[in-house]
Amino acid sequence: MRYAWAVPIASELEAVEARLIDVVGSDVPAAAQSTASLLAAGGKRIRPALVILSALAVNPDANRDAVVDLAAATELVHSASLMHDDVVDETKERRGTATSSAQWGNKISVLAGDFLLAKAFALLAGYEDFEIVKLLADTAIKMSESEILQASAEGDVSMWENNYWRIIRDKTARFMSACCQCGAIIAGASSDARAALGEYGIDLGIAFQVADDILDVVGDSSVTGKDAGTDLTHGKFTLPVILALRNLDYTRRQEVVEKLRAQKIAPEDAKDIAHLAAACGAVELSRQAAATHVDRAKSELQNLPESVYTQALSDMASFVVRRNK
Amino acid sequence: MRYAWAVPIASELEAVEARLIDVVGSDVPAAAQSTASLLAAGGKRIRPALVILSALAVNPDANRDAVVDLAAATELVHSASLMHDDVVDETKERRGTATSSAQWGNKISVLAGDFLLAKAFALLAGYEDFEIVKLLADTAIKMSESEILQASAEGDVSMWENNYWRIIRDKTARFMSACCQCGAIIAGASSDARAALGEYGIDLGIAFQVADDILDVVGDSSVTGKDAGTDLTHGKFTLPVILALRNLDYTRRQEVVEKLRAQKIAPEDAKDIAHLAAACGAVELSRQAAATHVDRAKSELQNLPESVYTQALSDMASFVVRRNK
Repeated sequence: MRYAWAVPIASELEAVEARLIDVVGSDVPAAAQSTASLLAAGGKRIRPALVILSALAVNPDANRDAVVDLAAATELVHSASLMHDDVVDETKERRGTATSSAQWGNKISVLAGDFLLAKAFALLAGYEDFEIVKLLADTAIKMSESEILQASAEGDVSMWENNYWRIIRDKTARFMSACCQCGAIIAGASSDARAALGEYGIDLGIAFQVADDILDVVGDSSVTGKDAGTDLTHGKFTLPVILALRNLDYTRRQEVVEKLRAQKIAPEDAKDIAHLAAACGAVELSRQAAATHVDRAKSELQNLPESVYTQALSDMASFVVRRNK
Repeated sequence: MRYAWAVPIASELEAVEARLIDVVGSDVPAAAQSTASLLAAGGKRIRPALVILSALAVNPDANRDAVVDLAAATELVHSASLMHDDVVDETKERRGTATSSAQWGNKISVLAGDFLLAKAFALLAGYEDFEIVKLLADTAIKMSESEILQASAEGDVSMWENNYWRIIRDKTARFMSACCQCGAIIAGASSDARAALGEYGIDLGIAFQVADDILDVVGDSSVTGKDAGTDLTHGKFTLPVILALRNLDYTRRQEVVEKLRAQKIAPEDAKDIAHLAAACGAVELSRQAAATHVDRAKSELQNLPESVYTQALSDMASFVVRRNK
């Protein structure tokens, strides 16, 4: 395992992989292959890790099978969302391999995303805890709602300025928080411990998403696997870009905004704005914002007993802003 | 109410409409509007009616609020599936109005379908019956799996011949059966009553889908709202078409199949084949197949106590093969 936070839960994460392969099995070749290839392409498995670490931080003797199933279910929800995002954003490559939509076409990808989401709920229904089903269903509602908001605000920087924090909270942070809370619930956490983990997850998620935004602007495309400014070419204004545009004087800002409004954002324009964001201090301001949320996330962990698992959650918080992809 | 089967449950069906409007509410305009306009365009509400009629056939004193919520949840699952189908099939018009994908674009439609599915599971989680959540999640798995099979068999008549019955069973019949079974479960049905309603739903669903296939071939496009042979232009071989092709002698059949394989199926070719199906007796054979399933569905109802609700279920079975849209 590459990541410090993964070390104490290596065997559980391995069990999650086995469970995922098992769960997406289907005698319909395109269903099995499209979902298996997305899962096989890897990913950091942050959401399953949050479930497992939260459960074990609360109760090191938590039922491993239930925790692993729940962790797998969250990765299925995440994978369903990735599969549909790739259709929505017309992404051709993810994690260094062709996306499902590029490989299988949009039809199969839309349906395979539905297949994964249904599999997640079937898995959740197996553990008779309605609080967990309700929490993840509500999370899925917020995720799709915020992605609709994101898609309908496409290319309009003023709408983005208003919506940015809501979108990253609902799309990314609430989901990570739900993962932590589900782990807490299944481990029989006190309401205080659950609340602390829930808050930890929100701050972690915000830091994670801002870090993602920064990578889009200054990331090494040979490592991230995508060109700088890709979010902008998809009509998405990320924090460093929003801050950079605010840094321009009014006339110059209007010029840029009009240019963005008048046409689809060309890769060259996107690159220019990304470079501007790096040069004018907007990236540094964004880094500070992410760091603040990392600190908050870590301070929430002080409400939990010290253990290798809380330490791993703390390592995870440092990791999400330090990663290079 | 236009339909005989809807008369004894008119107030419950009205309550379902109110519940649906309530449930899809969102402060994200595109989420609220895209889903509300799909629901407002109407539809026959067969799935909610099956939930309600099955529940009341088993127990006329079943909890109306729970039955209505469950009925609304099934319509949400159905609407999610329609919304994604319209993206998958690039359908521009449904029920006489522009589809969500035509009106809002594919991005919003993919995400709004996810939103509806998540809303359905959130609603289901409110009723603490894991059998129901599991049943509907398993149904959603089968639906997406069979649609993936359908999409991957596109344009290949030999694959269609092998897969036809499985696809219509998993895509349509199992879902209708699940609606009946959910109604039975929530009304506290005996396992015999539940099994009878489940079998009724399977036969009803098969009859419904074969009738749909026939409408695609011989339906009045001014009533159905789509041109004859639309399924074929989407690469889907329906029962009358499969039977028509079997009716041709080998040489002629290969000519047609090669023509279909060699190119996307043009509207003119689709119309020719649809007319052939009507002329050669394949439509009549399909009608007989549907009628057999209607008879089976009705005979299952003899295992239930006589009431206005079992009568309505019987009317529904007659209706699904007599409807003109």
